[in-house]
Amino acid sequence: MVNAERFIDKTIVEIQHEVGTHQVVMALSGGVDSSVCAALGAKAIGDHLNPIYVDTGLMRKGETDRISAMFGNLRLHIVHAEDEFLRALTGISDPEQKRKVIGERFIRVFEREAKKTKAPYLLQGTIYPDRIESEGGIKSHHNVGGMPLHVEFEKVIEPLRDLYKDEVREIARVLGLPPEIQHRMPFPGPGLAVRIIGEVTPEKIKVVREANAIVEEELVDRYVPWQCFAAVLGLGTGVKGDNRVHGWIIAVRAVNSRDGMTADPVEIPYNILRHLASRITAEIPSVARVVYDITSKPPATIEYE
Amino acid sequence: MVNAERFIDKTIVEIQHEVGTHQVVMALSGGVDSSVCAALGAKAIGDHLNPIYVDTGLMRKGETDRISAMFGNLRLHIVHAEDEFLRALTGISDPEQKRKVIGERFIRVFEREAKKTKAPYLLQGTIYPDRIESEGGIKSHHNVGGMPLHVEFEKVIEPLRDLYKDEVREIARVLGLPPEIQHRMPFPGPGLAVRIIGEVTPEKIKVVREANAIVEEELVDRYVPWQCFAAVLGLGTGVKGDNRVHGWIIAVRAVNSRDGMTADPVEIPYNILRHLASRITAEIPSVARVVYDITSKPPATIEYE
Repeated sequence: MVNAERFIDKTIVEIQHEVGTHQVVMALSGGVDSSVCAALGAKAIGDHLNPIYVDTGLMRKGETDRISAMFGNLRLHIVHAEDEFLRALTGISDPEQKRKVIGERFIRVFEREAKKTKAPYLLQGTIYPDRIESEGGIKSHHNVGGMPLHVEFEKVIEPLRDLYKDEVREIARVLGLPPEIQHRMPFPGPGLAVRIIGEVTPEKIKVVREANAIVEEELVDRYVPWQCFAAVLGLGTGVKGDNRVHGWIIAVRAVNSRDGMTADPVEIPYNILRHLASRITAEIPSVARVVYDITSKPPATIEYE
Repeated sequence: MVNAERFIDKTIVEIQHEVGTHQVVMALSGGVDSSVCAALGAKAIGDHLNPIYVDTGLMRKGETDRISAMFGNLRLHIVHAEDEFLRALTGISDPEQKRKVIGERFIRVFEREAKKTKAPYLLQGTIYPDRIESEGGIKSHHNVGGMPLHVEFEKVIEPLRDLYKDEVREIARVLGLPPEIQHRMPFPGPGLAVRIIGEVTPEKIKVVREANAIVEEELVDRYVPWQCFAAVLGLGTGVKGDNRVHGWIIAVRAVNSRDGMTADPVEIPYNILRHLASRITAEIPSVARVVYDITSKPPATIEYE
C-alpha cells in the first residue's frame, strides 16, 4: 500500500512538471479512478484541466445528474451522445463487437470534443489492473485506452498507473472526495451495454437501469460489496393470473473482492433475495424472473459481457 | 385426497368397461403421470395396451435407457426421432413457436406409430392441473393434448383427469411402481427445449443435458425438491488464465411446491451453491457462469420457456 499523503504531494508536483503551461484534456466517467485523477489534476494545474463527461445513454439511473452536481466546480463539459451510441449499436449482438462499437464511438465523441479544447496533453485514470487485464485481452475497452485517438496528443499522463483500486480509494479519502465517490463501485466503460446479453435496445436499457437501481438501493449499504448490479439475460416465461406471459430474466450480481482480479459472490440471505426478486418483478412489470449469480471470478468475469 | 386402493380398483374396472376388446395406444414419457396411467392400463387390459415412447432428442441424460429398462415388460415401443425434431427446430427462437413445432412433430411421430397399432382408442395421463393450465394457456403442449391428431380415435380415455400430482404419486406407491417413478420430478413435454433460451442447437442440448444431470445428482436426494433442473440462458464472459472467453450461462432452478400451481425456490445453502457452480463450470468447460433462480411461481413459471 502506498502512503497516500506522500503519493498525492509527489504526483501533484509530477503533473505540474509534466504539463508546464499547456492545456490538458481528460475523460471523466465519475468512477473513483477518473475522479481521483481529475481531483489530482485540478490541484496540480487548476483550470488548465478540461474534463469531459460523455453521456452514452448507457449510464446508471441519475448518473449524469449526480456527476454534474459533483464536478460542477471543475468546469465539467457534459456531452449528450445518447442517440449517437444507440444508433451505432443497432443490430449488434456479439459482445466483442458491442464493446468495439462503443469504444470506437466513445473515441470519436471524445476526440471531437477534445479538439475544441486545443489541449495537446491527455490525462487518464488508468490503474494497474487495467493495464494487466488489457494486455491479456480481458478488457478490450477501458477509459479511452485500447484504441487510437485521432487527436494526436503530445503526451499521455497516467498518474494512477501503478495503483490498485483500494489504493485509489484511500487516496480519494485523503483528498477529501465525497464518500459516494470514495466507495463508488467500479462501473465498466461500455456501461449498461455489457449488462445486456444480445442486442442493446431502448427497452432493455430501461429495464436493466431500473433493476440496477433497485439492486444498488437494497445491497450497497447493507453489504458494502466490491460491486453489485443487475443484468438482463433474455426472455423467459412467467405467469400472470392464469396466463403465460414472456418477461425479462434479470440476473443480480454482488461480489466481494480485494482488487477486482478475483471475486466471490456475496452470501446474501434468502429473505433478502426473495425481497429483491419481489421488488424487481413488482416494480418492473416486464420482468418475469430474477436469478442470483453464484459464480466466482474466475471462471466467470464480474461483468456479464 | 382420493383413497388410492379404491381409486385403483374403480379405475381398472372403468378402463375394462370403456375398452372392451379393443386395442389401445398410449404415449409413455416415463413421467409419473404416464407411468401410472400405463400401469393401470396394463392391469386393466394387459397386452391390449400399446405404449409408445418417442425419443425426441430432448430427453435427459440416460432417460431413454432408464425407461426402456423400466417398461420393457409392457412391450414398450421406442421410436428414435432425434434427427426429425432437431431438423424441425432449426432456426426457431421464439418460445411459443418452439413449443408448437415440438408439439406438432410429436403428434406427427405419434400418429405415424399409432396407426401401425390399428388401435381405435387412446389412453392419456392428463391430470387436473394440465387441464386447468391448458385452458388458461399456461401450457400450450402437454402429453399429446392441445393439438388435433390425424389418427381419428373413437375414444380418448383419461383416467387421471381429476387428480393432483401428489395423488398420482400416492397411487404410484400403492401400485408398487419403483421409487424412482413415484418420486420422479415433472418433466415438460417439450423436454430440454424449454430449458434452452433461443434456438435449440446440438451444442446447447449437450450443455444443458450435462448441467441438468449434475443438478439432479447434487440436489434430488439432498432436498427432495418438487423439481430441480438446469437451463441454458445464453453466452456471457468468463476468464481463463489472463484471457477473456465466452461461455454459456447456466441457470439452476430448484423449487418446492404442493401441486405445481405455485412454487418457491429451495433455500440451498451457499456452500452447496458454490459446489454446484464449481462442478458445472469444471465438468462442462464451455460454461462460464452459473446463476440460481430466486423467483417464486408466480410471477415466474417453474420452467424457463
